[in-house]
Amino acid sequence: MRQSHHKLTVATSGQGFYDITADVVARLSADRYRTGLLTLFIRHTSASLLIQENADRDVLDDLTAFLARVAPERQSLYRHVAEGNDDMPAHIRAALTQTHLAIPIVDGRLGLGTWQAIYVVEHRRAPHARLVLFHVLGD
Amino acid sequence: MRQSHHKLTVATSGQGFYDITADVVARLSADRYRTGLLTLFIRHTSASLLIQENADRDVLDDLTAFLARVAPERQSLYRHVAEGNDDMPAHIRAALTQTHLAIPIVDGRLGLGTWQAIYVVEHRRAPHARLVLFHVLGD
Amino acid sequence: MRQSHHKLTVATSGQGFYDITADVVARLSADRYRTGLLTLFIRHTSASLLIQENADRDVLDDLTAFLARVAPERQSLYRHVAEGNDDMPAHIRAALTQTHLAIPIVDGRLGLGTWQAIYVVEHRRAPHARLVLFHVLGD
Repeated sequence: MRQSHHKLTVATSGQGFYDITADVVARLSADRYRTGLLTLFIRHTSASLLIQENADRDVLDDLTAFLARVAPERQSLYRHVAEGNDDMPAHIRAALTQTHLAIPIVDGRLGLGTWQAIYVVEHRRAPHARLVLFHVLGD
Repeated sequence: MRQSHHKLTVATSGQGFYDITADVVARLSADRYRTGLLTLFIRHTSASLLIQENADRDVLDDLTAFLARVAPERQSLYRHVAEGNDDMPAHIRAALTQTHLAIPIVDGRLGLGTWQAIYVVEHRRAPHARLVLFHVLGD
Repeated sequence: MRQSHHKLTVATSGQGFYDITADVVARLSADRYRTGLLTLFIRHTSASLLIQENADRDVLDDLTAFLARVAPERQSLYRHVAEGNDDMPAHIRAALTQTHLAIPIVDGRLGLGTWQAIYVVEHRRAPHARLVLFHVLGD
């Protein structure tokens, strides 16, 4: 067994879902693992990771709307308001989703289902550069 | 160190929690790891994984009711309605829970707490076959 | 590649966030991994793990308030009430956050972002001893 690691910087331009599946697959392919485990980790607390449907763009818009509904940008709800009205809702929406993901590698391929894609979810309104760490182990 | 992988198909019959702990333990036992890490990954976006209490069935019913409350089947809330009123709520409920879980193996046993069980959570009303991938590594 | 494991018991005194980052780093340092993966697992269903901001204490208070809002201590909402009004909300709040976390080790250091800390989140009102398992692998 061996391991490797990579980095991916994702440039975001406002709230929403950024599909990084192709970037992840590209970075993995050079490693040539047959069997193993990929772990992704995002180094932020107002952006997050999520595996969700890749078929209908409406699903992602509905998820964005849900997160806005459950953690609204309403200043009266929060103490932490110095960094903008969208900052505390961003932390909550990140807390409800994932800081890390792990996906098995089977027969040389990432074990995602047919309809699964890997997303960076940006929860802030302003553009950001979001850093995702990769850890891979296997044979 | 070595690794192994397995699959488990779970036949669901409507929304709710399906305890797969015994199936997971059974698949692990043949591998005879003393120390290691188990990762489970579900290849779906409208069913998910969760570790929760195994003692009182009411806890699971209350969790199901909570998920129905936070992401209700109300068509006016969603754009993605073509696949049924329960489809978009299913994606949201899956997003709020887990696509993967990892559990350490200690002294030859899965490191679950006394009251912890591993569940596949079905978020759709119709029966489905849900595929869970296992990755195990250790000594 | 090699692996190691550790335990950490966290004494909690009511609902809120307990920063365990320094304890995690201390336990890891003796292992002297250059590259690897740390997995943390909490053996409870009414306390959980979360990576969130470490800079402004208000963020943690706002997260606590959010969890109280989304899963309130209102007996009429739940069947599972025998263990106290705070028990079922605790299970829901644990389900919305994490039972396990994984963090890559890069260049001999835990790959956390500048503003990220690792928290045990206690969801019960009474003091508890919460057990966190560590699994580490790498070189």
